[in-house]
Formats: sequence, C-alpha cells, structure tokens
Amino acid sequence: MALRIFVDVAAPPDTMQQLRDVAAGHQLLFPLKPAVSVLHKADPDPQLYTADIAFGQPDPNAVANADTLKWIHVSSSSITRYDNPSFRALVAERGIVVTNSATVYAEACAEHALAFMLAQSRQLPVGLKTRVAGGTEAWQTLRGNSVPLRGQTVLILGYGAIGKRLTELLRRFEMRIIAYRRTARGDEGVPVVTEAQLAPTLAHEADHIVNILPDSAATYHFFDASRFAAVKPGAVFYNIGRGTTVDQDVLLFALRSGRLKAAWLDVTDPEPLPDDHPLFAESNCFITPHVAGGHLDESSTLVRHFGANLNRFVRGEPLLDRVM
Amino acid sequence: MALRIFVDVAAPPDTMQQLRDVAAGHQLLFPLKPAVSVLHKADPDPQLYTADIAFGQPDPNAVANADTLKWIHVSSSSITRYDNPSFRALVAERGIVVTNSATVYAEACAEHALAFMLAQSRQLPVGLKTRVAGGTEAWQTLRGNSVPLRGQTVLILGYGAIGKRLTELLRRFEMRIIAYRRTARGDEGVPVVTEAQLAPTLAHEADHIVNILPDSAATYHFFDASRFAAVKPGAVFYNIGRGTTVDQDVLLFALRSGRLKAAWLDVTDPEPLPDDHPLFAESNCFITPHVAGGHLDESSTLVRHFGANLNRFVRGEPLLDRVM
Repeated sequence: MALRIFVDVAAPPDTMQQLRDVAAGHQLLFPLKPAVSVLHKADPDPQLYTADIAFGQPDPNAVANADTLKWIHVSSSSITRYDNPSFRALVAERGIVVTNSATVYAEACAEHALAFMLAQSRQLPVGLKTRVAGGTEAWQTLRGNSVPLRGQTVLILGYGAIGKRLTELLRRFEMRIIAYRRTARGDEGVPVVTEAQLAPTLAHEADHIVNILPDSAATYHFFDASRFAAVKPGAVFYNIGRGTTVDQDVLLFALRSGRLKAAWLDVTDPEPLPDDHPLFAESNCFITPHVAGGHLDESSTLVRHFGANLNRFVRGEPLLDRVM
Repeated sequence: MALRIFVDVAAPPDTMQQLRDVAAGHQLLFPLKPAVSVLHKADPDPQLYTADIAFGQPDPNAVANADTLKWIHVSSSSITRYDNPSFRALVAERGIVVTNSATVYAEACAEHALAFMLAQSRQLPVGLKTRVAGGTEAWQTLRGNSVPLRGQTVLILGYGAIGKRLTELLRRFEMRIIAYRRTARGDEGVPVVTEAQLAPTLAHEADHIVNILPDSAATYHFFDASRFAAVKPGAVFYNIGRGTTVDQDVLLFALRSGRLKAAWLDVTDPEPLPDDHPLFAESNCFITPHVAGGHLDESSTLVRHFGANLNRFVRGEPLLDRVM
C-alpha cells in the first residue's frame, strides 16, 4: 500500500533523489517552506494532516491535528521538542511510534568527543602554535603537560548511543569508564552511578567529564554551581550534549579559578555565542559550533537510515532507534 | 656485585633520587656536563671508560674506548646515532647489548598520532575558530568536511612499538590497517607490504599515511617526489618519525597542489623550522615541535623502565626493548 510521507528534511538534490529511491512506491509530500537543517523545526504545513509518516522535525503542536499519522522519524538524535509529558501522552493515546536518528550521528559524535579528549591530552592547541627547540625549558614543559589518557577516569553523563560508542573507542586506552544516566538498564557494560553517587564520583574520581545530556526541563543547568564546585581539581569538562545543561557563568568561573583545567564545548547557549562572550577569551576553553554529529554524506546516511526503518515499517517489524 | 653505571640523562631532582633508589647498591657516574634532554647527545666524558653500563645517549665514538662496557640503555626510541654498520660491528664484536626506551614513548607517540588523525577527521583546526549559526551554508560545509575514520584505510610506515600500539587504538574504528616495514617478521597482525607493493598501496589505498620511519641513511628523503607523486589524491600525511625522511620542498608542493589534503608533522628538518619557512604559511599543514613522545612524569617512566631492565641485567635475564 502506498504511504503518504511528509518530508521536511534539508538535503542536497542528489540526496533527495536517493530519498525518492528508498521511498519508491510511496508518495512524498514536501512542505512549501523547507527546514533549513536537520536540527531546525519546520513551519507548520497542512500536508502533515494527510500524512501516514513524518520524516524530519514536524511541529509538535501540529501533530495533534495529524489524524492519519502513524510514525514520526525525527531527523536528529535530540528529541527535545517532543520529549515532554503532553506529547508523550498524545502519541501514546494515538498509537504514533516515534523514532530518532541516533545511529546516524553516534559515530561522528563519539569521534568528536575522543578528538577533544586527545587534543587535550596531547596539548594540541598549545603545541600547534609553539615553535621551540628541543631541550629548552618551554619544550620540556610542553611535553610534561601532556597527560596520557591511559589510567585516567572518565565519567560519561547521558549514556545512549554516543556514550556506548565512545566507550568502545576508549576501551583500548585502559581508562576507567563510569556512566551516569537517568535510568540504568543493566546493559551498559560499565559501572553506572546514581544521582546520589554523582557528587562523590565527580569529587574523587572523574578526571574527564563528558556531558552528553539532552536538553529537557530536568537537565536545565544540570551543571550548576554546586556540581562544578564538587569536581576534582584539574578535571577537564567536555560538552557534546546541549548547551542548556550547563550554567555557563559558573563554567567560566570554574575555568578562571583553575578548578577545571579546560573545557571543550561543541554546544553552547545560545548558539553561536555572541562574539564578545567571555568564554571565547578563556585560553583553556575550546569551542566548535555544534558540528559533532556532522560528517561527509551525512544527509545520505540519514536517508539510508530512514529507508531501513521504512522497510521495517512496511513489513510490520520493530523500528530502529525507537524513542516513544 | 656493584656495577658502575654512567648516566647522562637530563631529569629533575626527584627523578634523580628515583634513579638512585632503583640503582641502590650500584655506583652512579654522572658526567660533569650533563645532556640537555633525553634526545641530545652528551659530550664525551672519561667516566664512560670505566663503566659497566651506560644509560642515556653516550657518544658512539667513545664507546670504542669503553673497554668495560657491557650494556647501553639508550634514553630515546630513536637509535639513529648508533644505527650504522660500524657501530653494530663494534658492539657485536665486544658483546655489548644495546636497548632503547621504545616502551617509554610508544603510548604517548601513538596517542599523538591518533590525536592528529582525529583532529583532521573532525576538522578541529577550522572548527575551533569558526563561529557560525546552525543551518548556514558555512555550517553545513564544515559538518560535511568531517570524514569519519571508520571505513578508511591507513598505511603505517615503520612498524615498531608505536605502530603496534596505534593499531590497537585504531582497531575499534573499523579502519583497514596496512603496515610497511623493512623486514616483515610475520607477527605484525596486519598486512605488511613490501617495497614493491608500496607504490600501488599509496596510489590506490592509503587515505591516511602515518610515517614513523626512523632516521638513517636508508630512510633519508624516503618520501621524495616520486613517492608523493604516487599518493592517492586527497590523502592525509602524518609524520611522527623523523623530519629527514621527508623531502619538505616536495611535501610543500603536494600540499599546495591539493594532492595531499593535509599534513600533520611532529618532526621537521631542521627543528624547529625557521619562522619564515613556507610550511608554516600553509593552511593545511599542522606542526607540533617534536613532542609526540612527551608526557607527564616522562623522566620518571624512563627511570622505571631502566630500573626494570637493570633488574633483568643483574639476574641475567633477556632485556626489554633490545635493539642490538
């Protein structure tokens, strides 16, 4: 049976052709005003109200009126705009399945996090602008400031697809890996700390704090003054989750006071930060502009992942990356 | 029996105390003019001529007159100043064992190489200075320029302790790993190409070329015009071996012509390069000042490694990192 698929995904022409191929036999409905990226919410479009499937970032309010909708495939890892009790109640009542694209971005995000960790460990930002002769004091200092990852402890907060993949990559470094997640499932393969154990873990164990927490009411300013005050002196903080989970004023203070040795941020609040934001002036704060999930042929990977799920949907099989 | 150990290693006072501890019961002989670093050759010192063991970078010419010498423990991975037929003949004739400190630096060197590879893959040099809003064309381009390591092919030239450790770290990335070494031993655990297979491997397979070749007459300008002309267009070149193994004029041309996408160098010829060297002006050339092996408490690791070998020497057991 031909399904009606509402698509509000920004992608180059060849990827759109690829989408037509994977959805051959079905009807694609494109909004009149397309989304600008896979992270952006589209404007409401009436075609959603006649669709069986929505692929992209459909307006959550409009979903209430989309009577024929059976499945939403979100084009990002983040499901923030859908992750609230009223939307969860709506899709539960209507029997709408919600999947995300975690698998598409997990590899690139995990590699980005490890790139941050190794750039810190190997002191790349300083090393790449230092021209010194071997044997000088500056050279000895630069060499000695490199702290190998081996033997250190990393705490990963928000332990989903990215955290699991990062753990796989870190295994060979012989690091101690600890996870924090809202609800431990028992299949993490690493020790999981609870809310109560978090403060002592931050205070005494974590040399590296990798924040992959999503944006939600529960995670707003999760890293606040009390949490930053508890970290082990000299810890390094990484954020590849969402900027809103960090109180940036406190982060700035933790960097200035030396409590944190460095911060590596792929996400901030807002994005981008204004040019005069003091974090840009901190010599130990390193910021990339929300590109951790990005990779060559990303929209093609996204469409392949949707196509795999579409095949499963047609055959009545369980969908990949189901989140509701 | 108390051994006489000639030590020309530059190290901070607490490490010297550590050395006295690991060598307790033996006699340490320090030169009047110590070496400036673990990489530098010391001036000749007459105390060498009465020593049983030399730890550091003893003058190769002086070794001929050191009649009591039984073992040289070189304080670097590189053994360039000893790696020639006449010195090899001398130590063979005299029954002097030569060990190096490969194990001490292998971990840091392998992490440095992977830091380079991931910084390239994740486009960190550009990303860290780009401030763009999500959804803009510049942002899409930056994301799309990130080429994941997964699925790519890496060729590692000079496959000793560092290459093996790098392979271990890279395994989880699901890369294809190929080694090139002068003499394949069969225990590499990865495919090893011969001299004859090198050109086609460079031309058709290697997306990443990791040069860990040592400095010797045989490796001088190993990467010359003919080798760079053969590389796969868009390959990335890394050098954590020795600067002399690369014809830098040709490297510069390969970068300017776009044949190479980027070069990441921890070693150059000379070191450091003069400030007006054109490689510094290349936007796709990234240089650290010979710090790949450096790490926190490096001289302490060096002394521990020597101590472990000293215990083996005293007990008549095979030494670690024996090279001659």
